[in-house]
Amino acid sequence: MQRSQAQTRFEISTKDQLSVTDITAQVHAAVPDDLTGIITVFVEHTTAAIAVNEAEKRLQGDLETALNELIDDTGWRHNEIDGNADSHIRAMLIGASATIPIEDGELATGTWQSVLLIECDGPRTRTVSVTATPAVNSHT
Amino acid sequence: MQRSQAQTRFEISTKDQLSVTDITAQVHAAVPDDLTGIITVFVEHTTAAIAVNEAEKRLQGDLETALNELIDDTGWRHNEIDGNADSHIRAMLIGASATIPIEDGELATGTWQSVLLIECDGPRTRTVSVTATPAVNSHT
Amino acid sequence: MQRSQAQTRFEISTKDQLSVTDITAQVHAAVPDDLTGIITVFVEHTTAAIAVNEAEKRLQGDLETALNELIDDTGWRHNEIDGNADSHIRAMLIGASATIPIEDGELATGTWQSVLLIECDGPRTRTVSVTATPAVNSHT
Repeated sequence: MQRSQAQTRFEISTKDQLSVTDITAQVHAAVPDDLTGIITVFVEHTTAAIAVNEAEKRLQGDLETALNELIDDTGWRHNEIDGNADSHIRAMLIGASATIPIEDGELATGTWQSVLLIECDGPRTRTVSVTATPAVNSHT
Repeated sequence: MQRSQAQTRFEISTKDQLSVTDITAQVHAAVPDDLTGIITVFVEHTTAAIAVNEAEKRLQGDLETALNELIDDTGWRHNEIDGNADSHIRAMLIGASATIPIEDGELATGTWQSVLLIECDGPRTRTVSVTATPAVNSHT
Repeated sequence: MQRSQAQTRFEISTKDQLSVTDITAQVHAAVPDDLTGIITVFVEHTTAAIAVNEAEKRLQGDLETALNELIDDTGWRHNEIDGNADSHIRAMLIGASATIPIEDGELATGTWQSVLLIECDGPRTRTVSVTATPAVNSHT
């Protein structure tokens, strides 16, 4: 049996400027076997985000399209610095983390839920941390 | 006094395709009496979301209107599968969970804050989990 | 060494109707010195939000512009009550809290990440709480 770990990190390489990557397997591998509680999945960057939704290929493309259409890619003042204001704003709309309930070492998610890394300024290598927190009376 | 419970679940039936339901009472009932810490309110579906905001009827309608206007309901590739790509995208913008501070068994929220289930593909029966996590030095 | 505290609060005065304020220093001051785990940063209001992103002045203005453009400021039914439906909707898109990993008393964030208070209906004085939760096996 794997030892409980407070905090682990993994890296993900993304392939396109705007892309959705299923990281459920990597997140699951970071969950202590005996944990009942929550995990916080956190991306250590300002132009990427974490969501919990369905990892269906066409939907992943649809989310990319939607984020592109919601936020223009020109006219921003931050672009005087590094030309990626749109990526920051898209990432803020989704959020840098997801907090997910865990039951007996398994993600307590619904049938269609996966953990998704939303890349908004790729391709890049991104660092994701998973912090495991026990629930009350869980005797972990 | 109620025993502390690590993790509880309840079900909510929603009435319309896009609708906002106040679930504060159900969430509060799932909070251990003596908890100081946080709870994670998590909806186990990919076309519904959790928000913390005001449970005012006209505002609830306004949020429905805003989500409708932000995301079109046609032109998505995922619709080849089950016709609800817009619902997924709206749910991702709000998020599948809320993490809320708890003080002595009560939601440590502001005067106007309620916990809201945002239904994006109803009417449906939705499962919501509440996981209770103690703060440091809280002797729960 | 500072004693671990389960839950602390601080106040922030904002300057404009829509504005972004870097609150990283205040959040950091509320983190117990020896904590490894997570903190939940929560704003106790329905027209303000918390994000984790870059605290660059031009980007802060860009986010204000983007939230203004995404959500119209007229035509809402809640405005019959207090004229700020747009502020509520903008706040819901960002979210009332952020959950952030902590390692040995420090925010385990990336180089460019700061904690931001997104004011959507200012200028106002806002109350923010920070709740500290230990990770498994962290012996806090």
